[in-house]
Amino acid sequence: MTFGLAVMNITNPFFSEVTLGVEEVADENGYAVIVGNSYDSLAKEAGYLHLFERQRCDGILLAPVGGELDRLQWLRQRPTPVVLVDRQDSPSGFRSVSVDDFQGGLLAGRHLLEIGCHRIAFVGGPFDVPQMRERRDGCAEAVREANGTSFEVVQTETLNAEVGRVIGDRLASLPPDRRPDGIFAANDVLGLGLLQSLLRHGVRVPEDVAIVGYDDIDFAAAAIVPLTSISQPTREIGRAAGHLLLAQLTGVGSMEDVRYEPDLVVRESTRRRP
Amino acid sequence: MTFGLAVMNITNPFFSEVTLGVEEVADENGYAVIVGNSYDSLAKEAGYLHLFERQRCDGILLAPVGGELDRLQWLRQRPTPVVLVDRQDSPSGFRSVSVDDFQGGLLAGRHLLEIGCHRIAFVGGPFDVPQMRERRDGCAEAVREANGTSFEVVQTETLNAEVGRVIGDRLASLPPDRRPDGIFAANDVLGLGLLQSLLRHGVRVPEDVAIVGYDDIDFAAAAIVPLTSISQPTREIGRAAGHLLLAQLTGVGSMEDVRYEPDLVVRESTRRRP
Repeated sequence: MTFGLAVMNITNPFFSEVTLGVEEVADENGYAVIVGNSYDSLAKEAGYLHLFERQRCDGILLAPVGGELDRLQWLRQRPTPVVLVDRQDSPSGFRSVSVDDFQGGLLAGRHLLEIGCHRIAFVGGPFDVPQMRERRDGCAEAVREANGTSFEVVQTETLNAEVGRVIGDRLASLPPDRRPDGIFAANDVLGLGLLQSLLRHGVRVPEDVAIVGYDDIDFAAAAIVPLTSISQPTREIGRAAGHLLLAQLTGVGSMEDVRYEPDLVVRESTRRRP
Repeated sequence: MTFGLAVMNITNPFFSEVTLGVEEVADENGYAVIVGNSYDSLAKEAGYLHLFERQRCDGILLAPVGGELDRLQWLRQRPTPVVLVDRQDSPSGFRSVSVDDFQGGLLAGRHLLEIGCHRIAFVGGPFDVPQMRERRDGCAEAVREANGTSFEVVQTETLNAEVGRVIGDRLASLPPDRRPDGIFAANDVLGLGLLQSLLRHGVRVPEDVAIVGYDDIDFAAAAIVPLTSISQPTREIGRAAGHLLLAQLTGVGSMEDVRYEPDLVVRESTRRRP
C-alpha cells in the first residue's frame, strides 16, 4: 500500500507543500508515500522510477524534470498507474495535475507594467522545463501588449536563494538606468535571494526595483519586504494528484486531468510608485 | 542500493536541508534515498520503518518522533544498519548524529537577558521530543543564572508558521506589562509566524518583544525583521549521518557518534534596546 513520489527538489517549499497534499490523501486511504528527489537530473529521476517499479509501489506520482516526456514511454507499458504533477501532458497519455504557467507569467508582467515599470526582466530557468518557458513567455506577452517597454531574460541553471543572491549582486552593480526596474522571479525562493542581495547593496525595493515572485510560499508574506507573488494551490495540487492516482487504482472517482489557474497576490515589493 | 530516511516533517527547512546532506553522500556513493514523513506520528514512523525493511533498503536513517526509543528494539534485531538523526541515543545502541540542544537553549536565553529582557517566554513543544525539553531547559537555566527574571513556557503541539501566528495573536492581545518582552521560539518557522502576527497587531519587534528562533533557516535572514537564530549545521548533520551509515555498511570510516554545538546568529529581531 505505497505510492512513490518523485519530485524535483524538496528544499523548495512548493514541492514540500505538494508532497503534504499527496500524503494527506494517501493517508486518508491507507497508503504510505515514499519520496525521491531528482534535483533536475534525468538520471536520478529514472533511478527513482525504476526503484518505485521494482519495489512494487501501487502508484507513481511524478513531477518530471525538464524536456520531452518520450523517455517515460517504458512506464506506459507497465501496469502501475502514473500521475504527472505540475506538468500537463497530452501526447504521452498520462493523467496530470497542472497549473497554467503562461497565465501566471501574464499576470506578473501586466502587474509590473501597471505599477509603472519600463525595463522588465524575467529571472529563471532552465528553459527545458516547460513551466519556466511558459512563465517567461507569459511575461513577454504582457510586455508585447505594452509597446515600447524593454524586456530582458536572465537565464539561470536552477532556482534557489543562492542563485538569487548572485544575480542580485550583479544587478546591483549596474548603473540605475541600465538596471531592470521590474523583476519577475520564476519562484519565490529565487525572488527572496534577489531581494536580500539588492537591499544589502542599498537598492530599494520597490522604489528602485519592483519584484514579483512565484508560488506564494509561506515566507513570501514574512519577507523583509513582503513579496508580491503568483500563487498556486500547492497543497490542493498534491491532493488532486493523490485522488487522480486513487481513481486509476480503484476505478472510483474522476479520471479527468486537473488544470488550475494561478492568482496574483499583491504585497509591498510592488507598491505603486508615486 | 537504497537508503530509507524517515523524517518528522519535510515542510520544515531543517529536515529538507538534512535530507539534502544525506542525499549528497548517498549519491556520491551510488545510493538512492527514499524519504518518508512521520509528522509526529509513531504509527507513521513504524509504518515507514517496516516498509524500508520489507523493501530491503541497505540502511535506514531515522529522525525519531518523540518519546522513548524502546519501541525501536525490533530494529536492533535486524541486520539493516540504522543511524539516528538529530537524536542522541546511548541506551538503545544505535549510532547517532545530534546537536546539543540544551546549549542552544542556554545561548538563546542568555542572549535575551543580555539585551535587557525581563519577562522571557519559551514557545514550543511537544515535550516528549527531547530536543524541545532541552531547548526549554537550557533557556530556563539561563534565566535561573539571572535572579529575578520571569520565565514562562507556552507549550505547543507542533511547530509551524500557523501555530506561531495563533500564539502571536494571543500574546498581542495581552496588556504590554503582562506580555513577554523576550521570546525564544523553538524553531524559525514558528518564530516567523509569531513575528508576522505581532507586527500585524502593531507590537514592535524588537522594541516591544525580542525574538530568537532556532535552525537559522535561509528565510530567517530574509524575514521582515531579520530573525536572530540558533544555527545548526543542517546539511552537515545529513552528511555525517550518511557517512556513519556507510561506515556501518562497508566497515570503512569512523563509527563514532557525532555531536555538534549550535551557534548564536544575532540579527535585527534582538537588537539591544536603548
